[in-house]
Amino acid sequence: MAFIVTDPLASIRVILCRPSHPGNIGATARAMKAMGLSDLRLVTPQRYPAPEAQSMATSAADVLGAARVHATLAAALEDCCAAYALSARPRDWSPPVLNAREAASAALARAAQGPVALVFGNETSGLTNDEIFACQTLVHIPTGPGLASLNLAQAVQIVAYELRLASSATPARTTEENALATVADLEGLHAHVERVALESGFLDPAAPRKLRERFRRLFSRLQLEREEVNLVRGLLRALEGRRRNPPGK
Amino acid sequence: MAFIVTDPLASIRVILCRPSHPGNIGATARAMKAMGLSDLRLVTPQRYPAPEAQSMATSAADVLGAARVHATLAAALEDCCAAYALSARPRDWSPPVLNAREAASAALARAAQGPVALVFGNETSGLTNDEIFACQTLVHIPTGPGLASLNLAQAVQIVAYELRLASSATPARTTEENALATVADLEGLHAHVERVALESGFLDPAAPRKLRERFRRLFSRLQLEREEVNLVRGLLRALEGRRRNPPGK
Repeated sequence: MAFIVTDPLASIRVILCRPSHPGNIGATARAMKAMGLSDLRLVTPQRYPAPEAQSMATSAADVLGAARVHATLAAALEDCCAAYALSARPRDWSPPVLNAREAASAALARAAQGPVALVFGNETSGLTNDEIFACQTLVHIPTGPGLASLNLAQAVQIVAYELRLASSATPARTTEENALATVADLEGLHAHVERVALESGFLDPAAPRKLRERFRRLFSRLQLEREEVNLVRGLLRALEGRRRNPPGK
Repeated sequence: MAFIVTDPLASIRVILCRPSHPGNIGATARAMKAMGLSDLRLVTPQRYPAPEAQSMATSAADVLGAARVHATLAAALEDCCAAYALSARPRDWSPPVLNAREAASAALARAAQGPVALVFGNETSGLTNDEIFACQTLVHIPTGPGLASLNLAQAVQIVAYELRLASSATPARTTEENALATVADLEGLHAHVERVALESGFLDPAAPRKLRERFRRLFSRLQLEREEVNLVRGLLRALEGRRRNPPGK
């Protein structure tokens, strides 16, 4: 069977088993949508539909509205080619364990073959053993020491975030690509700083205190942009100009 | 200067600027505690203390109880050696941008020198430009396409999770380095540059050409040492002095 996958995130399914609080269902929809996921399934939710779910979903009303309710986990998993069970605590006996980052990468790879499920348990009791063994992999989200626990929707958020990162070949980031200063630009800056330091008396040639080297080190530590060199030199020029022609002269 | 660092996560501070919903304050405390963070600051929260904050904090009542409230972001940042501003949308003009994973790693590295702040804005309006430029780095959490937005506490959760992972990747270490400039040192430098730029006529308040922001961005990229701040301010002072008392007068 051949699949043509345009966006592997479209094959990721989030399944909430027996959620108690409808607010968490809405917050889950929002967490999913923020990361580009859309397939939400609910297995015997305690109370749903509910106004709290709507109000927590905010802009993810479409994801929430499309959520399907199932009577059993097996039904929610039926057409999936892989299922990952989230668990807050280690189990004595479980499927193989991956952390959230490893699992996201593995799940995305599987998503080329068909729907892949991430399965989350009840807020208080988590997943039952049967639910866990309906999945092929157990997923652990690293947390701090002690009994600190993640809220259900926050656990979904972290997994959805890892899936999003795993799905982008190059992590999305906005960097400004401004033209970098050339060596000649930098030498012009160094010479300018040195000249005003001398003329202002800040640099005493008889006791130079490594000032030249310290300024060079400062401005060499990062790749200055040409525009930044011009900015600093513009300020120095203004300070010089006013010194040569003090106000009132 | 020698530092002995036991747990760099203890140096991470989460600052919420002008949060509207007390529930998000509680959810933030819980998100932090789950990942081993504990230093929470609130800048002019709209309503706090509030029962919704308590109820959302659940097991993180200790983190919430220890949260300090400040009248200004500057006060919350005062003793920090670095500050990272979270922003959902790219800005035309901003400090250097990192994604959440890169920022977590960078922030942890800085945490060996002192408190490091992660600064989050209001739920609806985000951070103001002034708040962003009080920080040295802008942080972007990669999200899905469209207008989907992260809830405030979910954004905190992702950053806290990345910090936790980065802290297990970075062994606690003793560093021997020059003392880095604190936020207060940098603010002193920014104010000094702005003053001489104005006095020299380089900065025309009627046509500011984003000069303030450009200087802030430049000096934020450099990760200045305290001694370097003194070096630059020393030169500016010498240039000012000579301007006020030109040679031959």
